Amino acid sequence: MTDALKPGQTIGILGGGQLGRMLAMAAARLGLQTHVYEPGANPPAAQVANRTTTAPYEDLDSLTAFAQSVDVVTYEFENVPADALDAIEAVVPIRPNRQALAVSQDRLTEKTFLTEIGLDCAPFAPVHDDATLAQAIALTGLPAILKTRRLGYDGKGQARIRETHDTTRALAEMQGAEAILEGMVAFDREISVIAARGADDTIACFEPGENVHKDGILHTTTVPADIDEALRERAFGVAGTILTALDYVGVMGVELFVVGDRLLVNEIAPRVHNSGHWTEAGAVIDQFEQHIRAVAGWPLVDPVRHSDVVMTNLIGDDVDDVAAIAAETGARLHLYGKAEARAGRKMGHVTRVLRPASDRV
Amino acid sequence: MTDALKPGQTIGILGGGQLGRMLAMAAARLGLQTHVYEPGANPPAAQVANRTTTAPYEDLDSLTAFAQSVDVVTYEFENVPADALDAIEAVVPIRPNRQALAVSQDRLTEKTFLTEIGLDCAPFAPVHDDATLAQAIALTGLPAILKTRRLGYDGKGQARIRETHDTTRALAEMQGAEAILEGMVAFDREISVIAARGADDTIACFEPGENVHKDGILHTTTVPADIDEALRERAFGVAGTILTALDYVGVMGVELFVVGDRLLVNEIAPRVHNSGHWTEAGAVIDQFEQHIRAVAGWPLVDPVRHSDVVMTNLIGDDVDDVAAIAAETGARLHLYGKAEARAGRKMGHVTRVLRPASDRV
Repeated sequence: MTDALKPGQTIGILGGGQLGRMLAMAAARLGLQTHVYEPGANPPAAQVANRTTTAPYEDLDSLTAFAQSVDVVTYEFENVPADALDAIEAVVPIRPNRQALAVSQDRLTEKTFLTEIGLDCAPFAPVHDDATLAQAIALTGLPAILKTRRLGYDGKGQARIRETHDTTRALAEMQGAEAILEGMVAFDREISVIAARGADDTIACFEPGENVHKDGILHTTTVPADIDEALRERAFGVAGTILTALDYVGVMGVELFVVGDRLLVNEIAPRVHNSGHWTEAGAVIDQFEQHIRAVAGWPLVDPVRHSDVVMTNLIGDDVDDVAAIAAETGARLHLYGKAEARAGRKMGHVTRVLRPASDRV
Repeated sequence: MTDALKPGQTIGILGGGQLGRMLAMAAARLGLQTHVYEPGANPPAAQVANRTTTAPYEDLDSLTAFAQSVDVVTYEFENVPADALDAIEAVVPIRPNRQALAVSQDRLTEKTFLTEIGLDCAPFAPVHDDATLAQAIALTGLPAILKTRRLGYDGKGQARIRETHDTTRALAEMQGAEAILEGMVAFDREISVIAARGADDTIACFEPGENVHKDGILHTTTVPADIDEALRERAFGVAGTILTALDYVGVMGVELFVVGDRLLVNEIAPRVHNSGHWTEAGAVIDQFEQHIRAVAGWPLVDPVRHSDVVMTNLIGDDVDDVAAIAAETGARLHLYGKAEARAGRKMGHVTRVLRPASDRV
């Protein structure tokens, strides 16, 4: 464990949402301290972190002070501004590294990177205006999705194009932002691999989960995914290829489309991922501890799954069902400590443990 | 869930040690807030609690303010002074209740209670002086253990009497405190049942674990215990009898001696218990969440065990082995965030997952 953090040392976490909160609790279980940096007031992660700084990402003095108070910095979301990262990296390492952030902050960079390392994606092309959109459609065919290159998530900053007469409206929805057109894939299913790479280059993947979205937001993840052993191994291979190419340290969420026997990479997230929340109820280690271990320079854990599970997000007023869920046999409830249940807001999740893993040794 | 706490409401926790810390994290997972009350500086639980009051148990104003800030109070240790409990109970309910505390604060009261509800204990008798000690020995035989009636734990405040010439030394070790003599039981094994009772009177017991002590402190808990089905059911029955008799709400640790086909109650602890730490790695719910659920008036979870496990305490400089333990396959490490590893101090624990539970359905 060269350069590994010792118990009592501190991990800085950029972002104080539910992912930062669950990371902070995992760090606490390992005797590591956390310092959360978050622009918004009353962040969920602050409730369980040792320390919180409330300041914007443009406040480089606060970022420097934050960096000086910690031993390594990680993050719960990928859209941290480059200047903020520069200020931090002048003081302490950032894990996962800058390259992973740069790639995943921009959909065009991401798709280009994935293609260059030999992986399959849906057809894509950059879009600046009507002319480039027309060229892009010629490449991808229709239907397709126009997306802002940066800052989109949970279906925001996206517009579907089914017919050529949709183009003007779709382009208007980008509000002048640089965009990318992606061919819509008639996939059989979407799966994700929660993959980790340690500071010692070891790679450990959780069992792929099968995702269903609703209104552009993840609704359920079912584990195991309904795929055969060969495809599962290939999914692990895809994740490993990405992690190695990026010299990545930490947990990554890799979303894949299954189309027949093909695997197309939909999206990568250089952080713990909503589709990995099931791990806390279905595996011997959860994605949050695995990420903290990697970031702290600790060895990874073999992420054996012990149960078949379905994770369901609790969005907005889904949280009104908490009393009923709490009474369900085999349901593991996890709430994020958010006071207000706004529409579309992730309030918590529930993982239903169906049965022991059928293939468990 | 009549009178059940809602997400966002607050549980007060008396005591800020590792048990309070693990309770606070369990509460956070359920979207409940915590306020820790602890006399000592830098309590481990403060690192993950929403709020901490640092004040002595004699400071009734601070206790009242604490009680006014929370919706229910629980505790991580049973030796809370009665005046402190009075101040709190004038404002909010205490769970588990006062009777459970009164019984478990005094070994003589506890043994008398257990005997009165029809359970077996080792022979015991009160001791004030040489004369009553001689009478007590006549009842229990030798060897026997002289213990202070109050405030002893982890082997402190105890003196073994093997021969009659040990009596003067043993009595001196009580330092004038009221004492109880307990006959030493040549037990086959010590097991414990982590039992819970909900506000709706339901009872749910975790699988019994088998405990081995070292230097008077719990060393390992192995689950399952090496007992047959009939004895296991009787152990559950004993725990249920105690919980019901006390109209108990919360988790209780019930330590039992197995002597042939007899079960003798050694000790009860009206709280989460060190011998239940394995639950976080071996069962679908851990004892901390089960306790929080009970205290919050939520339904209990059926505490199905999914794996065979051994929990080992990390005491004092055992914590130097953290790097090696972190690299072990199947070892779940849990550290308590304590800065200084003093001799005899509980620094953390590790639960080694051996295999899936053999009898799992």
